[in-house]
Amino acid sequence: MDDLILHEDPRSGNCFKIRLTAALLGKRIQRVQYDIMNGETRTSEFLQNVNANGRIPVLQIGNRFLPESNAACWYLAEGSPLIPAEAFDRADMLRWMFFEQYNHEPNIATLRFWLMFVGESNLSTFQRDQIMAKRAGGEAALAVMDEHLSARDWFVGDSVTLADLSLYPYTHVCEAGGFRLYDYPAVCRWLNRVSGLPRYVSMD
Amino acid sequence: MDDLILHEDPRSGNCFKIRLTAALLGKRIQRVQYDIMNGETRTSEFLQNVNANGRIPVLQIGNRFLPESNAACWYLAEGSPLIPAEAFDRADMLRWMFFEQYNHEPNIATLRFWLMFVGESNLSTFQRDQIMAKRAGGEAALAVMDEHLSARDWFVGDSVTLADLSLYPYTHVCEAGGFRLYDYPAVCRWLNRVSGLPRYVSMD
Repeated sequence: MDDLILHEDPRSGNCFKIRLTAALLGKRIQRVQYDIMNGETRTSEFLQNVNANGRIPVLQIGNRFLPESNAACWYLAEGSPLIPAEAFDRADMLRWMFFEQYNHEPNIATLRFWLMFVGESNLSTFQRDQIMAKRAGGEAALAVMDEHLSARDWFVGDSVTLADLSLYPYTHVCEAGGFRLYDYPAVCRWLNRVSGLPRYVSMD
Repeated sequence: MDDLILHEDPRSGNCFKIRLTAALLGKRIQRVQYDIMNGETRTSEFLQNVNANGRIPVLQIGNRFLPESNAACWYLAEGSPLIPAEAFDRADMLRWMFFEQYNHEPNIATLRFWLMFVGESNLSTFQRDQIMAKRAGGEAALAVMDEHLSARDWFVGDSVTLADLSLYPYTHVCEAGGFRLYDYPAVCRWLNRVSGLPRYVSMD
């Protein structure tokens, strides 16, 4: 088994996804930390050796590098119950993971990053002009999740899958981006289900 | 085998991904068409019966509905050579599909939609203010692709996979969004490789 090394910023929910997946599976992962606020993932060394796209997380497997948080979770979870055995459910799990990257993360994670780490007074006019649209997009994503979870415990099938682990990290800290979890009761119950899983670890 | 029905707008590259994947696999798909410009995916009937997220494409498999283009491609391709047999390569293919939804589509597809279908003179100030950022984001995505393809024929491994089929549709029509393919010679050679595949079908 190749060594697993996570290139990460511990404040990133995308990085937390991978640590949470590894923890639930009982897999050990080494951590190498970068400060994205100081451009540490944009150095020529990082771009050449870790990820030409200049982003974390990257999961290093031996001497091979795998960017994209959801792809890294997939790699860790193959062959485990975190990926459903049935073909439609497996594709449906990926559906929620693509939803997460398209409808959820760019709105909810970005507002958290802007408001909590950059600071509202430091935002550019361009960023400030996008707040309302990202607020609406994030609320729409949370509403879709809440409706889906109103009659079921997990996103796909009858137990936790990568769909849950992909959507959990930025949802459970969405209030830092100005979203109100109180408005999404089924989401709140589901958050408690995830954090109650055996071997759950918290975000740093 | 359940009947396959694609709920689509034929002008959408996300929908074309699924038709192209099905064509290369020799799978037959029925098509139900919606005009997204007329809000036909926002009707209460569509939201209730097809996709609560109000988006196409949705692949209907018997009486089950699978949104998200890349998840639908995955469903169609499981067990075929379009998904690599080796674990790292399989995750690496998903990596490029998540890259496509995060770094490529929101920039390249959106600019094509705005400039070709909405029309520059009909854009809102909010949309107009985003053009420069989406141009830069799209160019960065094309540059990452061009660098990756400069020393290889396909995104993952030695033959076509869903990574190629996911990135092809909006790349091959990116000039409608104001991008210049001429600047990305390795991408151009790869586009010809995809369109030269046996059973290739063109976008409507």
